[in-house]
Amino acid sequence: MGRVTERRRTLRIRDGAVSSRADTLVAEEPLEIRLNGKPLAITMRTPGDDFVLAAGFLVSEGVIAHGDEVQSIVYCAGATADGVNTYNVVDVKLAPGVVVPDITLERNVYTTSSCGLCGKASLDAVRTSTRHPVADAPPVRLTPELLAALPDRLRAAQKVFDRTGGLHAAALFSEAGELLDVREDVGRHNAVDKLVGRALTDGRLPLSRAVLLVSGRASFELAQKAVMAGIPVLAAVSAPSSLAVDLAAESGLTLVGFLRGGSMNVYAGEHRIALEAEVGQG
Amino acid sequence: MGRVTERRRTLRIRDGAVSSRADTLVAEEPLEIRLNGKPLAITMRTPGDDFVLAAGFLVSEGVIAHGDEVQSIVYCAGATADGVNTYNVVDVKLAPGVVVPDITLERNVYTTSSCGLCGKASLDAVRTSTRHPVADAPPVRLTPELLAALPDRLRAAQKVFDRTGGLHAAALFSEAGELLDVREDVGRHNAVDKLVGRALTDGRLPLSRAVLLVSGRASFELAQKAVMAGIPVLAAVSAPSSLAVDLAAESGLTLVGFLRGGSMNVYAGEHRIALEAEVGQG
Repeated sequence: MGRVTERRRTLRIRDGAVSSRADTLVAEEPLEIRLNGKPLAITMRTPGDDFVLAAGFLVSEGVIAHGDEVQSIVYCAGATADGVNTYNVVDVKLAPGVVVPDITLERNVYTTSSCGLCGKASLDAVRTSTRHPVADAPPVRLTPELLAALPDRLRAAQKVFDRTGGLHAAALFSEAGELLDVREDVGRHNAVDKLVGRALTDGRLPLSRAVLLVSGRASFELAQKAVMAGIPVLAAVSAPSSLAVDLAAESGLTLVGFLRGGSMNVYAGEHRIALEAEVGQG
Repeated sequence: MGRVTERRRTLRIRDGAVSSRADTLVAEEPLEIRLNGKPLAITMRTPGDDFVLAAGFLVSEGVIAHGDEVQSIVYCAGATADGVNTYNVVDVKLAPGVVVPDITLERNVYTTSSCGLCGKASLDAVRTSTRHPVADAPPVRLTPELLAALPDRLRAAQKVFDRTGGLHAAALFSEAGELLDVREDVGRHNAVDKLVGRALTDGRLPLSRAVLLVSGRASFELAQKAVMAGIPVLAAVSAPSSLAVDLAAESGLTLVGFLRGGSMNVYAGEHRIALEAEVGQG
């Protein structure tokens, strides 16, 4: 693609010394996702992997759950007034017979819920809409040591971050701690959608033996994406939100936060953490 | 409100030692913003300051630009099936005569653009739609020393972060470096909307002498919010995206990135940075 990064001139100020030089920035462009030709959503994303981003977005929103539900994904040529393809509009055509749900333009499917809007309704909507409920039998079991080693592996696999400092990363690991896939994007949610979309097109959904690691915080939205893809373990380098923890607890997702330097907090799904020590009261 | 943080039990693992204890998490709940009774958008936010969040969101989207364009902002009672007020649905009623623009449910107003979707179209849409073009005459002039001191002041003013580690922060400073307002939220865009919405209701728009500092990265969306509020300087602790830099350059916004430890990069609007040294070629 050649558009993952872009160069811009910048004025550097370092302790009083000023210099002018070119800097490498992470590229950000809008992507419009269309479903059967109708605009569905716009996301600001780092260009690249746009087809799997669109596919993963549709998994997260509950539109599709298996690769054979997609007939085609194409860039819309002639999307501009002068007919130039911007490579910023993607149309996903569903396979014949796949029901197009009545979703709004809003990112969150529960928008259409006739009941009021609250965290509880959001949890219920995700839990009841996933077609890949977390069902890892026998359960994935991870030692703290294995989990603690993952952030360094993610960091080592990040290609663009070192140059720009501007990217969020997400990675899938096997239960043995092996890196399966990694994506970087200006938006953390896009990085996860790209992972999930690739798994869908490769026929690897549900990801029932995988660990999803994100470079920052664990929001409700990221926990939702894990649940929709059937991922049993979500680990984050930083803090989770209250609603992410609640969704994890209700959906059977293991949620690990503050995973750094050999330490971590387990907020839900503790049965997947293999502990040798007894649990004391802190 | 009492809902800015919530407590959840967590399993702490520290170098092999395991303990069970309560942890303070940042609260996350959906907020539906209605315009004249019609659902407009949903954002996942930290509860609190919901009226100014809604007002600031409408400024960012180009719906309103002055406080007198708002007639009322209320929580919708009876928003749930059982009539309970969740305090998660806010209705903004515009003053008589204020035109309700034809915006979609999508966050980005340029969705409705009939031309194709690209970064350039996004820049044009923001630049032409702002009613507070950056117009600071005489220009705000900031020394690198003044800018370098701002992140510590933001950090000192963050209340919830220390307890949860889960919040983004945004602050407004005067051109003398004085902290004017600070907001924390699970979503960085919400923190900025809350700042702008408060300024709107206080009659302080445009913020033509203010500096906006954000705790993380500078995306297109944050640069858009600065431009829509007439803020001349946006500073970020981390990296900007390419589209944020382009929007700043086209809109006359000064964009500073990697503002940390006495160093910074100036990506646009260098005329507002008071430099003593000559600019060398790096």
